[in-house]
Amino acid sequence: MPTNKSWYLRKRPVGDVAESDLELISEEMPSLADSLVRVRTLYLSLDPTNRIWMSDMDAYLPPVELNTPMRGGSIGVVEESRFDAVPVGSIVNTGLATWALYNDLPGGAVNVLPQIPGLPLTAFMGPLGATGMTAYFGLTDIADPQPGETLVVSAAAGAVGSMVGQIGKIKGCRVVGIAGSDEKCRWLTETAGFDAAINYKTENVGDALDRHCPDGIDINFENVGGEIMEAVIARLNDFSRMPLCGLISTYNADPSANTGPRNFDNLLMRRTKVKGFIIIDYLDRFAEGAAAMGGWLMEGRLKYETDVVEGLENAPASLSRLFTGANLGKLVVKVSDL
Amino acid sequence: MPTNKSWYLRKRPVGDVAESDLELISEEMPSLADSLVRVRTLYLSLDPTNRIWMSDMDAYLPPVELNTPMRGGSIGVVEESRFDAVPVGSIVNTGLATWALYNDLPGGAVNVLPQIPGLPLTAFMGPLGATGMTAYFGLTDIADPQPGETLVVSAAAGAVGSMVGQIGKIKGCRVVGIAGSDEKCRWLTETAGFDAAINYKTENVGDALDRHCPDGIDINFENVGGEIMEAVIARLNDFSRMPLCGLISTYNADPSANTGPRNFDNLLMRRTKVKGFIIIDYLDRFAEGAAAMGGWLMEGRLKYETDVVEGLENAPASLSRLFTGANLGKLVVKVSDL
Repeated sequence: MPTNKSWYLRKRPVGDVAESDLELISEEMPSLADSLVRVRTLYLSLDPTNRIWMSDMDAYLPPVELNTPMRGGSIGVVEESRFDAVPVGSIVNTGLATWALYNDLPGGAVNVLPQIPGLPLTAFMGPLGATGMTAYFGLTDIADPQPGETLVVSAAAGAVGSMVGQIGKIKGCRVVGIAGSDEKCRWLTETAGFDAAINYKTENVGDALDRHCPDGIDINFENVGGEIMEAVIARLNDFSRMPLCGLISTYNADPSANTGPRNFDNLLMRRTKVKGFIIIDYLDRFAEGAAAMGGWLMEGRLKYETDVVEGLENAPASLSRLFTGANLGKLVVKVSDL
Repeated sequence: MPTNKSWYLRKRPVGDVAESDLELISEEMPSLADSLVRVRTLYLSLDPTNRIWMSDMDAYLPPVELNTPMRGGSIGVVEESRFDAVPVGSIVNTGLATWALYNDLPGGAVNVLPQIPGLPLTAFMGPLGATGMTAYFGLTDIADPQPGETLVVSAAAGAVGSMVGQIGKIKGCRVVGIAGSDEKCRWLTETAGFDAAINYKTENVGDALDRHCPDGIDINFENVGGEIMEAVIARLNDFSRMPLCGLISTYNADPSANTGPRNFDNLLMRRTKVKGFIIIDYLDRFAEGAAAMGGWLMEGRLKYETDVVEGLENAPASLSRLFTGANLGKLVVKVSDL
């Protein structure tokens, strides 16, 4: 039996995640139970929502229990199988597994990934993975973008935001992204085809929105919350839509802090639709999303970046890259080689 | 020519509306212009949104200009007509007119009201008027109530809230109202058929919601904002809906005050749909709403109250009844006799 390595959650983080909130444990694995597959992790997905799962807030999934392995999505290779439809050697998306070298999972709960020449596996964590599906369904299902409308997306250089903006361009929108560095802003306009990008660390976001959105804002794809969200809400048009995907600026904050936009009343005056959503609500429509995103990807219409950190041991420390604005594109940990 | 009496807006109110913010002016009327009708006001509608129109905020209609007559809805009788389709003697709903004894209006902009035996004219300001249509479309179009769901409505004894709750009952919901006096709460449960009512002035709203909504809250019809809204948001179910109709607790407040719910993040976690709306967005569907509400009214399934203040001179002072919680049902000013 192989020896597993797993990150156990030991403490609920206060503010930023500290490495001491988790502990990397080595343990012998039991023999594989009936109907399960043993998956060796190739790539572990790091996402802002990991921080929510570590807290004890009343969120969309139960918190990770203390002294159990940290929850996470991953892609891996099946090394042992007791489920005929998923043989040894299959490359699978685990959906929700743990931050571990090995996960024993029900064979019916993993998705066998197609192997497409020229398409790296990490694409299944980006445009063809949960973040890509988040962008696709949040934008198309909730906001129904129309040609000529103005779309603003925050955390625009992240895994979700970068896809949102590019889908918006495909749908004929004027797209303005908000990101945290000049390098990211250049990537958004020069590589991803955004019409404009705003560096919120060096620019006054409101003034920049006034400049880049002369006809107001029809769609706000919200990933961040806080003052950036308020600046966008202040400039919404009548009948605007606001897919509420994330509030990353608040996840490390004191839970009693006020997360409400001070100009909430403008959502009434502008008759805005705000709709919270979580990608797991769209699981039954993933085939539709993957077909659309896969088609655009093959046509070269979706650019994406993968920010690869090496080594399972670096997972907790790397999570902070999502909150400081250090990463561009999808953040993954490379755990082992195929 | 008759002499008109009109309330002119002289100052933008700070906080509560003061009588000195308006001035009652008598003036000779000009002769009636072509295609207009001269309507003598019978009933003037007082509504929370009047306070918004007096301010200079960027709302859904332009502010009333200073030193012009205050805007308002009314029902009146046509005393002179230069528009053939609306003859003298017609009883009309003016849509948007002014706080005046007489209004000269385009004949095509007024709605001639049917005269139905046993139905008082004021019903066309309540269940069959803008407030009834607000309740009908806000609840049915935005929230799509399903049998067995729990609906909470704030300002429940007001013109809109009282209709929302009764439509909710007709649709098979469990309905809990929040109001500001024991008398109103009794009216809600004993007359209007609500399942429960909470007096926010004497009860802890959160505790009472826990007691009366054991299965959580599926629909929050929001009229009030502030801490009451936060207490409801904290108890929303997954996939809940929140028609955002009014934020009356904030209208008299300092415009820089924070109107955002401190638990805004729960709208994400619960995947709530929040949708601001204004009844003028539904003008083209009024026939549908009037047919539904009229049918239920004739069947005796909608109870309503009219809070009648006598005399145009009392309009500004009476507006405060909407904000102090003094009134039950639709607040109107009786301006002249038919």
